Amino acid sequence: MSQYILKIDCSDEKGLIYRIADVVFKYQLNIIKNDEFVDRENSKFFMRAELSGEVDLNSFKGTLEAMLPAHSNIYVFEARKKDIVLMATKESHCLGDILLKHDSEDLNANILAVVSNYDELRGLSEKFNIPYHCVTHDGLSREEHEAQVLKILSSYKIDYIVLAKYMRILSGEFVGHYNQKMINIHHSFLPAFIGANPYKQAFERGVKIIGATAHFVNNNLDEGPIIAQDVIHINHEMNWKDMQRAGRNVEKNVLSNALDLVFEERIFVHDNKTIIF
Amino acid sequence: MSQYILKIDCSDEKGLIYRIADVVFKYQLNIIKNDEFVDRENSKFFMRAELSGEVDLNSFKGTLEAMLPAHSNIYVFEARKKDIVLMATKESHCLGDILLKHDSEDLNANILAVVSNYDELRGLSEKFNIPYHCVTHDGLSREEHEAQVLKILSSYKIDYIVLAKYMRILSGEFVGHYNQKMINIHHSFLPAFIGANPYKQAFERGVKIIGATAHFVNNNLDEGPIIAQDVIHINHEMNWKDMQRAGRNVEKNVLSNALDLVFEERIFVHDNKTIIF
Amino acid sequence: MSQYILKIDCSDEKGLIYRIADVVFKYQLNIIKNDEFVDRENSKFFMRAELSGEVDLNSFKGTLEAMLPAHSNIYVFEARKKDIVLMATKESHCLGDILLKHDSEDLNANILAVVSNYDELRGLSEKFNIPYHCVTHDGLSREEHEAQVLKILSSYKIDYIVLAKYMRILSGEFVGHYNQKMINIHHSFLPAFIGANPYKQAFERGVKIIGATAHFVNNNLDEGPIIAQDVIHINHEMNWKDMQRAGRNVEKNVLSNALDLVFEERIFVHDNKTIIF
Amino acid sequence: MSQYILKIDCSDEKGLIYRIADVVFKYQLNIIKNDEFVDRENSKFFMRAELSGEVDLNSFKGTLEAMLPAHSNIYVFEARKKDIVLMATKESHCLGDILLKHDSEDLNANILAVVSNYDELRGLSEKFNIPYHCVTHDGLSREEHEAQVLKILSSYKIDYIVLAKYMRILSGEFVGHYNQKMINIHHSFLPAFIGANPYKQAFERGVKIIGATAHFVNNNLDEGPIIAQDVIHINHEMNWKDMQRAGRNVEKNVLSNALDLVFEERIFVHDNKTIIF
Repeated sequence: MSQYILKIDCSDEKGLIYRIADVVFKYQLNIIKNDEFVDRENSKFFMRAELSGEVDLNSFKGTLEAMLPAHSNIYVFEARKKDIVLMATKESHCLGDILLKHDSEDLNANILAVVSNYDELRGLSEKFNIPYHCVTHDGLSREEHEAQVLKILSSYKIDYIVLAKYMRILSGEFVGHYNQKMINIHHSFLPAFIGANPYKQAFERGVKIIGATAHFVNNNLDEGPIIAQDVIHINHEMNWKDMQRAGRNVEKNVLSNALDLVFEERIFVHDNKTIIF
Repeated sequence: MSQYILKIDCSDEKGLIYRIADVVFKYQLNIIKNDEFVDRENSKFFMRAELSGEVDLNSFKGTLEAMLPAHSNIYVFEARKKDIVLMATKESHCLGDILLKHDSEDLNANILAVVSNYDELRGLSEKFNIPYHCVTHDGLSREEHEAQVLKILSSYKIDYIVLAKYMRILSGEFVGHYNQKMINIHHSFLPAFIGANPYKQAFERGVKIIGATAHFVNNNLDEGPIIAQDVIHINHEMNWKDMQRAGRNVEKNVLSNALDLVFEERIFVHDNKTIIF
Repeated sequence: MSQYILKIDCSDEKGLIYRIADVVFKYQLNIIKNDEFVDRENSKFFMRAELSGEVDLNSFKGTLEAMLPAHSNIYVFEARKKDIVLMATKESHCLGDILLKHDSEDLNANILAVVSNYDELRGLSEKFNIPYHCVTHDGLSREEHEAQVLKILSSYKIDYIVLAKYMRILSGEFVGHYNQKMINIHHSFLPAFIGANPYKQAFERGVKIIGATAHFVNNNLDEGPIIAQDVIHINHEMNWKDMQRAGRNVEKNVLSNALDLVFEERIFVHDNKTIIF
Repeated sequence: MSQYILKIDCSDEKGLIYRIADVVFKYQLNIIKNDEFVDRENSKFFMRAELSGEVDLNSFKGTLEAMLPAHSNIYVFEARKKDIVLMATKESHCLGDILLKHDSEDLNANILAVVSNYDELRGLSEKFNIPYHCVTHDGLSREEHEAQVLKILSSYKIDYIVLAKYMRILSGEFVGHYNQKMINIHHSFLPAFIGANPYKQAFERGVKIIGATAHFVNNNLDEGPIIAQDVIHINHEMNWKDMQRAGRNVEKNVLSNALDLVFEERIFVHDNKTIIF
């Protein structure tokens, strides 16, 4: 039996669950897991189901479409491992963590390549037999650099790009090519400490917690839809380098948790927020 | 429009959601919130829905019953504040927290009375105009004492009994009168440190976390279905009295969170575990 | 035997601990607990000790002064319960929590009075026999209102003022009267969501954690030295009122933890940050 | 200038800090960081200092010895990276995390070798150029197997042995060779779920938190002095394999935090508990 994931978002109406369940039933599909959420303020309905059985996806989707309100978004596909590219700069903790999980088959994705603006992480990537592309930004304008990166990315069939501590700001144009397909880890509990060196900012503000935020990337730096966040407690004995070191474990765990959710297609983005089942 | 809560647990079958949604739709009810869970190992289906509309509950329930597998449990009722009795001994932090929330209308329940085996908490309860019943256990056998407590309890129409640091063990017979209707707060992260003085046990074992557990009460001390748990970090500077003091905030918060879930009827108990929507 | 607290901050030098320990030893005092911290970046030394014995405080302080670098700050005093005034507006959860702890002798302070700009919390305060002063801001300029509040405050001998959800911004002049003597609880994990309605801001940003921050009050809104912070995890099902409700437990616990530290004189403020022993 | 660590534990007496500071001062050493703790119940004094300067360690230690109570334990040594051997079985997450940190020079230790009772982790270890010794237990008695392992271990000069998910119980005799030199990670919040498959035990008990515990190994399974613990929240949707997967991040972080403390010599063990500075 095949496993499918069905995601629907549409305007809310009475009887939606009944109509959808009716179609699912008629196509002889089993519901393994089913989650719904109604955003009352915006009158929006969100549903994600894991289904098993055998179905013609086009026919199934067409029948659903006919039953649902106009402008509904219906995604239905066979469950499968995602194909991803990792981007990183010099720090190895997030990249290494993902490579390790991939190596032990604990990642629900295939890593196609690592792309970096430095050569530092080549050894680590190649240990795990992942192709490594270094695209230096030295002497290049942002446009030129991004064009080179895009050329490499376009040679892969990519479901998601993971910015595993990629420390260069990406232009809106670049981001536009991978809308809701790029996940970033930011080393602060956003919206606090947007931008450069958040640990130094945290140290200077004298906070008692530090954290990390995984989010989809959009046009505005560190302002995309948040997927996961966590914090740890710190104290006055820690300078910003101590915080940076302690923060690494939070960063990699928050990114890891976010990737699990993304790769299992558990997330809807609406109104710059995430709905997560 | 009235608000209803519908809870169903039954053996799992294909088409259950369709059949239930069909009935809900035919009775013209709106689904405000809907959660399902299938326990695959035991092939059990659990569903909780918040509905709005106007319905004859007997007719609605009867129609559902006809559609569902044999031996299904169907609970459907108008959403309303629960009527509760609090039991406590001498410590005031959990009792006081609940009284405060009740006083500021932040508790989804009416407190009918406080019952205690000591008189210490009378002043606190009466500040908030809650009847206080002191039933001393002095000179009484467990049976005699419980008989007196039961007599008082039976004078109230009770949805739930909250053991807000009631420090006497209750007999199986007593518990049997209020099956899945009694919630206890235990001052450890169960199953660690069952029984008396868990903070002292924690100190002696040298743990680095302490916690609290809210659970339904059953026949076996501290072994009922767990509703909520949390912990805080501690260090070597704390003796067991320091832990006890620090633990109070955890205890009252864990109990408070558990009561929210209980009073909104979000919990199923199955196989000594809780399913919480 | 008497209990004393000794706090020293001064520029760092070799031999400081030796010189201080020498004086303590000569005055026949027992060191119950001793903590030091050296801020290397600023070459500052901080020490806090709990001492027991019998000593002439002036003589002891004078001897220390002679031993320490110029411009050292030396505070030494008998350990005692602090005298505090609480300020609040309409919300009862922080105020109530402190009143309860005071009532059960679990607060290391005497509550002299509650001051509010509304009358809503009079009933609660008076239940616990605490004098309640309502100073409405209706029809008054900020200056006039603060003058009236200051008049009441000046009738008490106050160690600390606790802003237990006092929702009016205080002028720099007002704050200047109680420098490092006022503790505020802000309902966000600062520096995120400064200002009005942080829960609404948090909801709109779509964060996955909410939190609270206790800090000393200075001239700049929500920018004083941070004492304690904590967060809880939230999800897309929660609107900002749900967050507000869930956040109350965090607010009152963070404030409670901060007050413990303040009342036991465990905090140094330096460079808008706290050093906490 | 050299960096030293000084650790003292002895029976408590008046004037200890003065006497120690006096010696430190006379040897012209700078105190970088200094922590003390007095266990009042047992009248024991613990101190750890980081010192800088140049000193003859034997002379310094001898002078301290002469000043301190009989039976004092005094350890003083130059700060340096520890030499460690890792032991593991089949799971890679803890081992891989330590290898990664080592590779990026984020571990305060040199990894001399990996020893395992299976060959599964050879590839991972050798990627990072760490010698791998597989000692199968197939067909061997515990004594025979441990003798072979001990033979390999004895060929290295080891400060600490890290059991990074080594899933065989070690005999008291084996443990005796490395008293307070072996750190284990147990996949539960001890003392809950001692022994085999704690995630399955946790699932069956229906807990709402799972966790991990790093501890020194002693004769009794999972009963050694606890160094670090943490937990994460779980829900009814997770079966024990989901818990196991989610728990891996906690396990590796708790172990990582414990190793930081161990390798920086921040821990005293007393009475089967740890004092951590």
